[in-house]
Amino acid sequence: MKNAYIISTGTELLLGTTLDSNSVFLSQKLIELGINIIGKSTVGDKHEQLTRAFALGLESADIIIASGGLGPTFDDLTKIVACELLECELELREEEDKHLREIFAQRHRPMPEINLRQAMFPVEAVALKNSLGTAPGMYLKKNDKLIILLPGPPREMTNMYLDEVEPLLKKDFALDIHKVFRRNIKTLGLGESQVEEKLGDLMHVPDGLAMALLAIDGEIHIRLTAEGQEEQSSRQCLADHSVKIVERMGRNVFAFDDETLLSRVASLLLTRGIRLAVAESCTGGLLSKMITDMAGSSTYFWGGVISYSNEAKQLVLGVKETTLIRHGAVSPENAREMAQGIRQIAGSDFALSITGIAGPDGESPDKPVGLVYIGLAYDGGCDVKELRLGGGRDIIRIISAKSALDLLRRHIEFR
Amino acid sequence: MKNAYIISTGTELLLGTTLDSNSVFLSQKLIELGINIIGKSTVGDKHEQLTRAFALGLESADIIIASGGLGPTFDDLTKIVACELLECELELREEEDKHLREIFAQRHRPMPEINLRQAMFPVEAVALKNSLGTAPGMYLKKNDKLIILLPGPPREMTNMYLDEVEPLLKKDFALDIHKVFRRNIKTLGLGESQVEEKLGDLMHVPDGLAMALLAIDGEIHIRLTAEGQEEQSSRQCLADHSVKIVERMGRNVFAFDDETLLSRVASLLLTRGIRLAVAESCTGGLLSKMITDMAGSSTYFWGGVISYSNEAKQLVLGVKETTLIRHGAVSPENAREMAQGIRQIAGSDFALSITGIAGPDGESPDKPVGLVYIGLAYDGGCDVKELRLGGGRDIIRIISAKSALDLLRRHIEFR
Repeated sequence: MKNAYIISTGTELLLGTTLDSNSVFLSQKLIELGINIIGKSTVGDKHEQLTRAFALGLESADIIIASGGLGPTFDDLTKIVACELLECELELREEEDKHLREIFAQRHRPMPEINLRQAMFPVEAVALKNSLGTAPGMYLKKNDKLIILLPGPPREMTNMYLDEVEPLLKKDFALDIHKVFRRNIKTLGLGESQVEEKLGDLMHVPDGLAMALLAIDGEIHIRLTAEGQEEQSSRQCLADHSVKIVERMGRNVFAFDDETLLSRVASLLLTRGIRLAVAESCTGGLLSKMITDMAGSSTYFWGGVISYSNEAKQLVLGVKETTLIRHGAVSPENAREMAQGIRQIAGSDFALSITGIAGPDGESPDKPVGLVYIGLAYDGGCDVKELRLGGGRDIIRIISAKSALDLLRRHIEFR
Repeated sequence: MKNAYIISTGTELLLGTTLDSNSVFLSQKLIELGINIIGKSTVGDKHEQLTRAFALGLESADIIIASGGLGPTFDDLTKIVACELLECELELREEEDKHLREIFAQRHRPMPEINLRQAMFPVEAVALKNSLGTAPGMYLKKNDKLIILLPGPPREMTNMYLDEVEPLLKKDFALDIHKVFRRNIKTLGLGESQVEEKLGDLMHVPDGLAMALLAIDGEIHIRLTAEGQEEQSSRQCLADHSVKIVERMGRNVFAFDDETLLSRVASLLLTRGIRLAVAESCTGGLLSKMITDMAGSSTYFWGGVISYSNEAKQLVLGVKETTLIRHGAVSPENAREMAQGIRQIAGSDFALSITGIAGPDGESPDKPVGLVYIGLAYDGGCDVKELRLGGGRDIIRIISAKSALDLLRRHIEFR
C-alpha cells in the first residue's frame, strides 16, 4: 500500500477562518484509490516552513501532494521549494509561456513579466493543464517519490485532480489500487456504544479484515477494510462479514459507501413518484434546506412551512389553539397536527413535521432541552416519534432533521 | 511575537470524513491572543508519524499545542512521544490516579488497569483538569518551548482550552499579547477585486500596519493588523486607517471583528422590536435555517414558507397565476408577490423573499443559473433586487440568503 502526505499552503488557511476543503477532498479521493494518508500539513507561504513540510512529506511518504503556491507572486514558492529539496533546476517551458500569453491576450490584458514564473518548471517535471485558471500544476517522479503540485483555488484544484492526476495515479504509477476493498455501512437511530453492543461478537473480525466505528453527526458508520489477501478471498471475506452486520443492524442501516441519507431518501421518493411537504418548528428550515441541497429536489419536494411561532402553527397549518394550550408546542399532539396540516394544504403523499426544544433556552421541568417530536403523515395515518437528544443546539437540530428523513425512509422501505 | 504549531492527532482525521474543528478553534483563539500560527499538522495514531510532527513543531515554534491521543488505549501516544523528544520520564500522579478512580466509582464501574495510563505524566508537566471526560491534559515548559496537550473530543478540548490554557497563556507565560491590534471590517455586495478597486490608495497602508482581503462565502473581509510600535501609536494608526476604509466602503460595511451578518441583523431586529417573516424558493429553507441558527430568534422570527413548487407559491402565499405564467417564478414580480404575501399572512413588520435558479439545471436562454431576485416588503412598499451569481448551487444559495439579510439590514440602518 502506498503512503501519501498532503500539504496545503496559504497563510489564510492558518487564520481559522478559511476551511481547508482541498485536503479533505484529496484525502477522500486518495483513500478511494487505496492510498493511505499518512499525514497532512498546513503551512503559510514562507520558504522555511514550506521546506520543513515538504521535507517531512518526502521523509515519510511515497506520494506528496500539495495545493497552493503556484501563482505568479513572490509568495508563491512551492515549485521552488520542491526543486531545492529534489535538487533539480527550474527551466522556462516554451509551450507554457505561449499558453499563458494566449490567456492574457484573450482577456485583452498585457501579461505582467512576473507571470513568466508560472511557465517555469523543474527540468524533470510534467506540466498539468489548468482549464480554469492561469496556474498550471505539475508532477515529478524522482528518487522513488512522486510529487504532485496543484493550484490552491478549490475549483481549479479539484478539476485538475480529476482530469489529470487521478488517471495518472490509476494508470502510469500502477498503484496496487485493487488490493484494498472497503465497505461502509451507515446506520441511524442508535448511539456508538449501542451499535457496539448490538454487533457483539461481530466486532471481532476475521483475519485480513479491519473494522472501525465512526460517529458523524448522529450517524454511526461501520467501516470495513479488507486487504493483504488474494483479491478473491479479500472480496469474499468483506462480503461475508458485511452481510452479517447488515442483518444484525436491520432497519438501522440506511445506506452504503458513498450513498447518504439524503440521496437514499431522494432516490426512494423519485423512483416511487412520491411528493413530500414539511412543517418545521425547532429546526427552523434545516430539514427543507437539507432536502433542497440536492439538485432536482423540486421533482418530489412541494415545499413547507416554518412555523417558528405559535401564530404560524395555527394560522397556516391549522393547529388547534386547544392543542397548544393543553399540550404545548412541544408535544406529540402538535407534531401530529403540524404534519397532517401541511399534508392537507400540499395535497402531498407524505408530510414530515418537527417540533422540539433546541435550546439553550426554553426548557421546563418536564420538557428538557433536546426533547423533540417528529411526525409523519401519510394516507391513512400519522406516526409520531419522540427523541431525547443532547449535544447542544446545532447537533440537536441536525439529528432532528435527519431522524425525520429516516422516519420517512423506514416507512417507505418497510411498510 | 510568539509562534505556535498546532498538531491534531487521530487516524479518523485523515479519512476526509471527520472535520478537524479543533485546529480551527485553536487557530482562532491563539490569533486572538496575538500568537502567530506557523503551521498545522494532522497525523494518525502512529508513533513514528507523531514523533515527526512533534519534532517539526519543536523545531519551528515556541508553543506546540496538540489535541487527541490522551485516552487510555495503546494508540494514545502523545504523552509518550512528547516525553521522548523532550527527554523526560513518565511518572504516576497519585492525585490523578485518585481522581480517575472516583470518576469510575461514580459511574459504578470498575476502573480497567489500562486507564492508569491516564494518570501518568512527564515529571516536569502540570496536569490540566478535564471536567467533561476522563483524560486530563497537561502543559510542560522545557528548553524555552511550551508544550500543551489537550484531549481530542471537541467539547472537552474547547472547555479545557478556555478554562485552563487561555488564562495560562495570558498570565503565566507573559506573552506580548497586548502589542498586536486587529480590526476586521466585513463587507457584502462587492467582489474582491471591486473592493480592491474601491479602496484604491487605501490599499497602501502606513508603516506598522498590515492589510489583507479575505473572501469568505460572498463576504469580503478587510483585515488590519497593527504591531511592532508603541501601544498608543499602534492603536492610533489602526483606528485612523479603519475610519478611512469604513468611510470609503460605506453601506457595504455590515459588521466588525467577531460580529457576523446574522448577529448584526438579529441585534437590529431585537433592539427595534421588529418581527420578520420569510418566503423562500431557490434557497429552500436556508435563509430560515440561518436566522434560527441564533438561539432566541423566536423573539423576532415569525416563521416562513418554503414555496419550492408553484402550487405552494399560489396556494399559501397567494402569488397570482398570471404572474407565474407571464413572468415566470424567477422574476421581480414573483419576488414582490411572495414578500408581500408572506408579510400579509404573518402580519409582520418586514418580510423577505428569495426566488432564483440555483442550478445546475433549470436555466433558460434569458434566465441563467445564478439569476436570483430578493424582495423586501415593509409598511408602505416593497423593494426587489436582482443578483447574478456564479460558483455553483451551494454558494449561489448561501449568497442569496446573505444578500436578503443584507437588504433588510441596509433598509433598517439607512432608511
